[in-house]
Amino acid sequence: MERRTESKLEPIILPPPKLDHGGSLAEALRARRTVRAFSDRALPEQILSDLLWAACGINRRNGPFGVAGRTAASASNSQEVVVYVALREGAYFYDAAAHRLEPVAKGDLRRFGLSARQGAGGADAPVRLIYVADIGKLEHTAGFDEPGLHDFEVQQSYYYVDTGLIAANVYLFAASQNLAAWFHNCDRAALSQKLGLSDRQRPLFAQTVGYPEGAAP
Amino acid sequence: MERRTESKLEPIILPPPKLDHGGSLAEALRARRTVRAFSDRALPEQILSDLLWAACGINRRNGPFGVAGRTAASASNSQEVVVYVALREGAYFYDAAAHRLEPVAKGDLRRFGLSARQGAGGADAPVRLIYVADIGKLEHTAGFDEPGLHDFEVQQSYYYVDTGLIAANVYLFAASQNLAAWFHNCDRAALSQKLGLSDRQRPLFAQTVGYPEGAAP
Repeated sequence: MERRTESKLEPIILPPPKLDHGGSLAEALRARRTVRAFSDRALPEQILSDLLWAACGINRRNGPFGVAGRTAASASNSQEVVVYVALREGAYFYDAAAHRLEPVAKGDLRRFGLSARQGAGGADAPVRLIYVADIGKLEHTAGFDEPGLHDFEVQQSYYYVDTGLIAANVYLFAASQNLAAWFHNCDRAALSQKLGLSDRQRPLFAQTVGYPEGAAP
Repeated sequence: MERRTESKLEPIILPPPKLDHGGSLAEALRARRTVRAFSDRALPEQILSDLLWAACGINRRNGPFGVAGRTAASASNSQEVVVYVALREGAYFYDAAAHRLEPVAKGDLRRFGLSARQGAGGADAPVRLIYVADIGKLEHTAGFDEPGLHDFEVQQSYYYVDTGLIAANVYLFAASQNLAAWFHNCDRAALSQKLGLSDRQRPLFAQTVGYPEGAAP
């Protein structure tokens, strides 16, 4: 793998997820917690690969509605919440089908994954996941007409829940690997602009992952 | 344990969660899927206990903000999403601190955990979890003033994400135990009334759990 930070930002071809390590689900649930203080140590490629696969990777070819299935459920398998990854050298889109990171923007956008209230929390953590809703993938829900809810409220309810479904997987994966993880607000306006998103794509929240501060390398 | 369906609905004292069984987190992630066809076979008490603990049980005494920690994260550990459990004999509130089910309404409310669009899907499944947001627990978020979002939108974003954080744990627990699980809409108005909720408590979604249809007992 090359990450040519001095010139063009290159795709990151992730190694296949390694699934034969790690403890039990029960142990991960027992260890699940939010940790907000991070080391700046980078995650090894294999851990980044495993993390993204655990988050919302493809776990079977034949999922509902004719689409590959994911580790995280989504409304009618619409997979409308996508994950961007801000690393020190740049921001990438996680292409789950190819299990690779496609370059989106060169440079360090990690700070925009924090909202004003968060201050500089976890500013040096190596990985910031950014959850973005792609409203276009929820068009089939128009007219679902849940009593008392407008279409846009139905869509919001779906994409926020679906964000949580991914974020919980991240929390459990982090717990299983003794990594720190923290789900938090982000600077939505800045991320929309920096990631070049359309008005149908909405940054929602972010989740920071790294080694806990003070952990032995 | 007694469940006196012929007279008053009694609390269900759940056995302590059993955490030494089950496979790896990676296996659960690999097996994670939505299954919408259920057997009507009841879940053993121990499995119900483990399921609820995995969902949002207490996993440590000292969580953030001076409150016990849960297997599922929530906004500033506000734990504003609570779980009701509709079983054949009645509906209960899951008291995570005591790890027991407090009676709420006698009789079979499971069908109200489905919205009109779901028809009778999973109508005979033994367990329907009902996610309810308790808005009163989010009052500290008023004035968080995320740019471009009203207070009520901030609150919605939190309680929907927090619902997903619980539901993912349920999906993974189900996968680890070869149980079927399905997250879906519910009849919000009927549940508000049947569960005797206040106007600060909002039923959001439901999740059905049971043995898959046709599975050998």
